[in-house]
Amino acid sequence: MKPKPRILALAGGVGGAKLVAGLAPILKDRLTVLVNTGDDFEHLGFHVSPDIDTVMYTLAGIANPRTGWGVANETWSFMDQVGRLGGPTWFNLGDRDVAVHALRTSGLRRGETLTSVTAELCRSFNLQPSVLPMTNDPVRTIIHSDKRTIAFQEYFVGLKCEAPVRRLTYRGTESAKFNPRLCELPGTDQPLVTIICPSNPYLSIDPILSLPGLKEWITETSAAIVAVSPIVGDDAIKGPAAKIMRELGIEPSAAAVARHYDGLIDGFVLDTIDAKYSPEIEALGVEVISAQTIMVEECDRIALARTCLDFAECLISPRKA
Amino acid sequence: MKPKPRILALAGGVGGAKLVAGLAPILKDRLTVLVNTGDDFEHLGFHVSPDIDTVMYTLAGIANPRTGWGVANETWSFMDQVGRLGGPTWFNLGDRDVAVHALRTSGLRRGETLTSVTAELCRSFNLQPSVLPMTNDPVRTIIHSDKRTIAFQEYFVGLKCEAPVRRLTYRGTESAKFNPRLCELPGTDQPLVTIICPSNPYLSIDPILSLPGLKEWITETSAAIVAVSPIVGDDAIKGPAAKIMRELGIEPSAAAVARHYDGLIDGFVLDTIDAKYSPEIEALGVEVISAQTIMVEECDRIALARTCLDFAECLISPRKA
Repeated sequence: MKPKPRILALAGGVGGAKLVAGLAPILKDRLTVLVNTGDDFEHLGFHVSPDIDTVMYTLAGIANPRTGWGVANETWSFMDQVGRLGGPTWFNLGDRDVAVHALRTSGLRRGETLTSVTAELCRSFNLQPSVLPMTNDPVRTIIHSDKRTIAFQEYFVGLKCEAPVRRLTYRGTESAKFNPRLCELPGTDQPLVTIICPSNPYLSIDPILSLPGLKEWITETSAAIVAVSPIVGDDAIKGPAAKIMRELGIEPSAAAVARHYDGLIDGFVLDTIDAKYSPEIEALGVEVISAQTIMVEECDRIALARTCLDFAECLISPRKA
Repeated sequence: MKPKPRILALAGGVGGAKLVAGLAPILKDRLTVLVNTGDDFEHLGFHVSPDIDTVMYTLAGIANPRTGWGVANETWSFMDQVGRLGGPTWFNLGDRDVAVHALRTSGLRRGETLTSVTAELCRSFNLQPSVLPMTNDPVRTIIHSDKRTIAFQEYFVGLKCEAPVRRLTYRGTESAKFNPRLCELPGTDQPLVTIICPSNPYLSIDPILSLPGLKEWITETSAAIVAVSPIVGDDAIKGPAAKIMRELGIEPSAAAVARHYDGLIDGFVLDTIDAKYSPEIEALGVEVISAQTIMVEECDRIALARTCLDFAECLISPRKA
C-alpha cells in the first residue's frame, strides 16, 4: 500500500474553511492548515484573527452560516454596550466570539506565540487537524487604492470593499518568518501534498506566499501542489475576488486564477461550468480537472475534498512520489 | 448665603456606591468620588476595576442588585464560551460588563491613565459626579492569612473570604501617587467636606488612606471629615467587614469603626440601633449622630446622604469654615 500523503492546505476566508472542513474528516491529523493572518488586527484591545477563527469555527461546526464570520447562536450584548458607551461598532464582535479573542489576546500578552495560543484554542475545540497561523510575526495586508492606502479591515468591513484596489502589499512580510512548525510536520517520511484552497488569491493566499522562503519551501517539499479555483462562472462565489481582479486589470476567470499561480501549481481544480478553460490552463503545463466546487451542503465539502485528494495522488504517482 | 461645600466621598464596594448614589442627585458636579483600586486586577487580558465599576453602574442606575457587581439585564455568553474552551470561570464577567473592561483596557494600552479612561466611561454613562480612581499607579490589596499571602480577588471571589485575615498590605502603595486630579477639584474657594462612605474599612478605605500624603492632604484640605459606619448592630450589612475585624482581634461594632478612623474624622454617623455607642465615640472627640443607615430603597440613599451633608455643614460652621 502506498503511504498516505500528508496534506498542507493554504486557506483564508469562508471558501477555504469549507474545503478544509471537507478534508478534515478524511485526513484527521494528517491535515495541516496554514492560515492567512494578513487580516489580523488589534481592535478594542483584542488581537482579532478573522481567518484563523473562520477555519476553527468551521472545523468545530459552530461557524455562523449567515454572516460568514463568528459563531452560530451568538448573542450581541457586548457590542450593544460598546455602542451605548460611544465605542466603535463598525467591526461587530459577538459575545461568544469575544471569548476567543480574549483568550487569544491574554495568551499573547503572557508572551505566547500566535501558534501556541491557536493550538490551545484548537485543543479546546477538539479539532484534529493542525491549524497554523502563516507566521507568528505581524504581517498586515494593505490596500493601495486611488491616492490612499487602507488597512485591511477598514477596506473589507469599514468600506465594504468599495475602494478600488490598485495594488496590495503585505506590510511586515519582508522581516516575517513563516511558521517554523511547518518544518516539523508529522510523518515526514510520507509525501506532502499542498492544496491551495478556493480562497481569495490576493487577500488570502498571496499574503501567505509573500512570506520569505515559503513559496520555495512549498515547491521543494511538496510532491504535488493543487489549487482550487475560487472563481466560478467568471465571478466569485463570495467576496470581492472578481471585483479586485477587474480593478487590477485582470478579466476574472478560473483561467486567470490558474495563471496567477503559474509556476507554483501542478494541478488545478475548476468548476464544471468552467471546463472550457481547461485547454488554456493545460497549456501552462498544469493538469486540470473539473468538479462541482460550490459547497452548499456538508456532503459537497467532502466530495470536493475527495476529488482534490484523488487528483493530487494521481499527480504524485508518476512524477514525484 | 453660605457657599455650598464641595464633597469628596471615599468609596469602595456596594455600601459606598449606594451612599454615593444618594449624594449624586443632590450635589451633581459638586461631588467627587475617590474610589479604591486595591481590588483591581488583570483577568483574561482585561484590566478589571471592580469598585470603580460598582460606583459607575450604581450611579448610572444599571447596577445588578442581586449580585452586588456587574449590570442588570446581563447576558452570559462570553463566560459560557470561556468555560467551554477550558478558560478560567472562577471570576464571572457578564457580556455587557466585558464591554466596559475592554474599553478601559484598550484605553490603558493606548497609554491613557486610569483616571482618563474612567472619565471617558463616566461621560458615556452621563454621570455628573467626578469619579476618580484613588491612583493611576498599581496598588494591590494583599491578604496575609495563616502561612500565606493571597491576592485580593483570589481571597474575595476565589476563596469567598474563607481564609482568616491576619494582616493586610497594599502592595505598591509606597511608590504610588494619589490621584493628582484631587488637587484640581472644582470650586476651590468653597469648603471641602470629606465623607468616608460605609465601605469596608480594611478592604475599601484603608487602601485609599494608605497612599503617601493622602491622609495629610485630606486632613489639611477638609473643613470637615465624616465617616459612616458600615457596621450595624455589631455586624456588617454586607461583605466580610465584621468577620475580618474578628480575625484581626477587634470586636466588630460601630464604635470599633470610629476608633479605626480616630484622629482623622470630625463626625461619625452610626445606625439608630447603635446609638448606645455614641458616648464612647464622643469621648474620642468625634461628634456623633444616629440615622437609618441601611439603604434598601433609593429614598433611603438620599435620606442618608442629606443627613451626612447636614451633619457635615454643622461640623464646619463653628470650627473650620
